[in-house]
This record gives sequence, structure tokens and C-alpha cells, in this order.
Amino acid sequence: MRSAPALQKLLDELERLPGIGTKSAQRIAYWMLNTDSATVLRLADAITEVKQTVRFCSRCFNYAEGELCEICQSAERDGSTICVVSEPRDIAAIERTGAFSGMYHVLGGELSPMDGVGPDDLRIAELMRRLASEDVSEIILATNPNVEGETTATYIARLLKPLGVTVSRLASGMPVGGELDFVDEVTLTRAIEARRAL
Amino acid sequence: MRSAPALQKLLDELERLPGIGTKSAQRIAYWMLNTDSATVLRLADAITEVKQTVRFCSRCFNYAEGELCEICQSAERDGSTICVVSEPRDIAAIERTGAFSGMYHVLGGELSPMDGVGPDDLRIAELMRRLASEDVSEIILATNPNVEGETTATYIARLLKPLGVTVSRLASGMPVGGELDFVDEVTLTRAIEARRAL
Repeated sequence: MRSAPALQKLLDELERLPGIGTKSAQRIAYWMLNTDSATVLRLADAITEVKQTVRFCSRCFNYAEGELCEICQSAERDGSTICVVSEPRDIAAIERTGAFSGMYHVLGGELSPMDGVGPDDLRIAELMRRLASEDVSEIILATNPNVEGETTATYIARLLKPLGVTVSRLASGMPVGGELDFVDEVTLTRAIEARRAL
Repeated sequence: MRSAPALQKLLDELERLPGIGTKSAQRIAYWMLNTDSATVLRLADAITEVKQTVRFCSRCFNYAEGELCEICQSAERDGSTICVVSEPRDIAAIERTGAFSGMYHVLGGELSPMDGVGPDDLRIAELMRRLASEDVSEIILATNPNVEGETTATYIARLLKPLGVTVSRLASGMPVGGELDFVDEVTLTRAIEARRAL
């Protein structure tokens, strides 16, 4: 195709985005060409602004626009509970539930010897430092329910044991609203093992 | 979710894109946060550049960066055949085949009385002016193979008849590589009617 050079450059850059193939890039590019400049340039500005202003919170390593993220700045959060997650996007998922009002700590990944990710590559030392300086009574290990996440949770739980802090892990079990015969065996096994008396 | 304001703004703008929902916007935004600034800002620049430089070719109404698009500027294209399409993206589709070496004319839509699109809303008068000034022997009506596209093709064919120019329409029939029992009845009817002797 003989695209105008500027259009071809836009298509190339759009195809770099995760989940965007040739067809989606084309649809987005043509939408941009057909949409008023103000709307389209707002996106360009938002991208530039995010890259200029967003960095890591110096306490919990969530995304932040200043020294501390909005959660660490908030006076309404309960500082005695820290929920440990792998990535900032996991914070977004937990916040959407509205079921947790404590603080967070982002590890920046999960232990994975196969990929060469060891304890020193995660923000575990930073977590231990927080425990020494902050008044924390419970740590919830909310790493992913897969091999890497379980390994990471087990590793951190062992480090925390001598400190006398309560350590918990998110429950595994049946997804609410799901159907029993669509649930995989491992999840179903966990659901049976962790059954609750009614 | 408590997103940093700049991140929230980016998410809002990404969700405006066609085919991008909440989940995709989040995946793209987190990719942008985790990717080096140079790569991400190249996209912001490409968007800005496209909106600043791309306009319509003054002859065929394809996208162009100057007065004329690359096809109208090219000395290698055959000016005696004009392929009439609805949108610039249709040019991209035909160019990918490499089967056409003539010129194009973009109507900017298709006749659709239901949506209030009449002949004056399309670049039909501009096409007639080109026929008066250029040396054209054939017009290929490559509007979409649907009701609006057929109506538009029929309307234009009627206007062109008195001018003594050859008017053709893209063939309808079986998609190559498809399977017969997946082809819809209308397409199959057309394929039977237009069968070719071997």
C-alpha cells in the first residue's frame, strides 16, 4: 500500500501496542484521520503527560504523580495492613472490589528461576524495611494464584514468620457466578479442601 | 480505582479509540508506563504529525501530505482508468492486491437515503469534472458489495452512460479459499449467475 509517510509511521507505532494487529491499527489510524484534531490530540497529550509525570511511589511502588501515590497519601487508609501484589495493575483490580482499605506493596514481578528472576530482582528488601519502620500487624500476600505467585508468597511468608506479623493469602476456590463443570481440577480441589461449614 | 490523574486521563482517551474497551485500554496504558519513553513518545509524535500534515488529495481525495497523494503524483500509474471507491481505506485494500495500476476517486461515503446521504454529499460532481478534463477510458465502480454500495454504483453508472466511457463493477462470487457451504445465499447466487466456461 502507498500510504502517506506520516500515516505509515502512525500505523507502525500503533502496531507496537499490545493486542493491536495490522487491522486494528488501520481502524484506529483511519478513526484518527476522520476525527476532529482536538479529540485526537488529547490522546497524544495524555500519552506525553503520563510519560512525563508518572513514576513509582517511593513507599509502595504503585504508580504515582508525586513522591507518594494517592493511596499512601490518603488519611483514610488503614496502615496496619499491607497487601503485597506483583504489579501496580493488581492494585487497580483489588481497589475495584472496594473490599480492602489498607496499604499496598508492589513487588515488581514474581520469583521465576526459569526467567532468571530471583529475590533481589523484587522489592522484597524494601518490604522488610517498611515492616521495620511502620506499625504493621498483617501482611496479605496477593501474588497471582499460579506457580510463580505461589512460590513468591511461600518465600516471603518464610521471611516474615520470625517477625511475629500475621501473614495471610487470598482464598482460592470457585469463581462466583461460574458453573461447577467449567472449573478446572486444581481450583475445584482447593474449593473442596477449603469448604466452609454452613 | 484510585489512578493517578494523568493515568486516568490516558485511560479515558484510549477508551475512545474504536475497538478498545476498558481492559484493552488498561493493557495499553500499563504497557506505556512500562516501556521506555522514546518508544512511547514516538507514538504521541506520530499522532500529532498525522493530524498536522495529512489532508485530502485535491484530485482524487485520497489521504495526502501535499497537494496531491502519492498515487496521483506517480508517473507510473495509468491515468486512463479510474477506480471509484467509498473511502481512502478501500484504496489501501486494492493497492495491497497489486492488481490495479490506474488512478482512484474517493467518494467519501455511499448513497444512503435512510441516513440522509444524497448525491450532493458525495464527491460525484468532482468525478464528473475529472472526466471532463482528464483522458479517461474506463471507470471501475468499486463501492461496497452491499445495498448502499450497489445503489451508489447504479446511480453513478447512469450518470456516466451518456459520456461513452466504459463502466465496470468488481465481480461478485465465491471468496477464494472459502468453503461452499459457508458462503451466503446471495453471494452463491451471484457466483452461479456469473459462472465461467472452462
